[in-house]
Amino acid sequence: MRDSLVAAAFQLFLERGYEQTTVDEIVALAGVGRRSFFRYFPSKEDVVFPDHERCLAEMNDFLGKDSGNGRGSGGDADDPVARVCDAARVVLRMYAENPTFSVQRYRLTKKVPGLRTYELSVVWRYERALAEYLRGRFAGRRDGTLRADVIAAAVVAAHNNGLRSWLRSDGQSDASAEVDHALAHVQEVFGPGPAPVGPAQQPTGEPAKEPTEDDVVVVISRRGAPMWRVVQEVETALGRNPE
Amino acid sequence: MRDSLVAAAFQLFLERGYEQTTVDEIVALAGVGRRSFFRYFPSKEDVVFPDHERCLAEMNDFLGKDSGNGRGSGGDADDPVARVCDAARVVLRMYAENPTFSVQRYRLTKKVPGLRTYELSVVWRYERALAEYLRGRFAGRRDGTLRADVIAAAVVAAHNNGLRSWLRSDGQSDASAEVDHALAHVQEVFGPGPAPVGPAQQPTGEPAKEPTEDDVVVVISRRGAPMWRVVQEVETALGRNPE
Repeated sequence: MRDSLVAAAFQLFLERGYEQTTVDEIVALAGVGRRSFFRYFPSKEDVVFPDHERCLAEMNDFLGKDSGNGRGSGGDADDPVARVCDAARVVLRMYAENPTFSVQRYRLTKKVPGLRTYELSVVWRYERALAEYLRGRFAGRRDGTLRADVIAAAVVAAHNNGLRSWLRSDGQSDASAEVDHALAHVQEVFGPGPAPVGPAQQPTGEPAKEPTEDDVVVVISRRGAPMWRVVQEVETALGRNPE
Repeated sequence: MRDSLVAAAFQLFLERGYEQTTVDEIVALAGVGRRSFFRYFPSKEDVVFPDHERCLAEMNDFLGKDSGNGRGSGGDADDPVARVCDAARVVLRMYAENPTFSVQRYRLTKKVPGLRTYELSVVWRYERALAEYLRGRFAGRRDGTLRADVIAAAVVAAHNNGLRSWLRSDGQSDASAEVDHALAHVQEVFGPGPAPVGPAQQPTGEPAKEPTEDDVVVVISRRGAPMWRVVQEVETALGRNPE
């Protein structure tokens, strides 16, 4: 019944416009009572975003918020930035599951300011879920809260940049590739702290040693190397690992 | 009259609660007609955020959106990240101008979901203004749009992190210091390319030379140096300046 309400609502929104469609018309088309509508959707806006609550729950589940046992973490348990990027992909999958519906909604949301505002509040909840997770991971770290908030915002902005590219292509481009590319950018910028490297990976070819506080550290790098790689090498040489 | 409407509204919001206060009660207390209220404020929500339109206009002015002649850019004309950080400070100044009002509004907004949503749409407009500016600056650059969106989101998140610290201190802490610290974090992460440095500032004490593409670059740094400084030194040694 929930699905048929969503289908009826979108048929009417597309035919008549969102503002011009009433809940009464939606329930009449779906052949159910008004009370049934409000059992599933607190308002007309909610029927436009029927899957976000489930998606948010899934994201929190993935982040292990309730259990704290790292389930869903896969091989990224030690890299919080990779983890929140993967959590953002939960949202992408929800969109990509149903391209036609997602593209229709994208067009509708662009036209109706009230829906745009509603969507902002949904996006904000995703961002807070990611930030809360990162705050936990960065707890006790200098500027941990700040870093958590900034990374969460960056991940959401990158995800949405990739998602919008796909939506603007009318769902024709590769949604995963778009978002992977965007999230890779964030991962390059923010980390990970490099995995501990053994002697063979040392840029100088020298065995790794733990520098003391007063040591002078020398890093040698090719000028052509990408900056993120150079920064990783510097962090490694300095014995800094953000986690 | 605008100011007295805001004052009357906040007096009532604090005494009775936001939801319980009507526009009629506000205009009665302010001693003006209902039409005057709606001349200044399209809705009751707008009276809670009376300065954001002016502030947004000021931000766009600072970013030189209309003129493109770099006015307001000061010495940062060549560093887009510093420029958007300075643009975000326009918002901070609006809050810091009137600490009591800002703290009252912060408490009110936390309690009223509708105001929180309204605020999100305001924040989103600031973020879009910064992103549009950066998109212009990064035009033609690989991933320019993505980078613009991510930096804008990071700047807004950092600004709001600092702003909230100040608001939570009931306006007792140093607002500028809080936000400067938060924005410095973003600038560390995203650049700038360092300003060209002369021989005296070279970390190795050696005169600067332009490395060729195949050069191996050696950077020497004390372990105790902050990471942003090390990164600046590496970037300088590599001869990279993002803009």
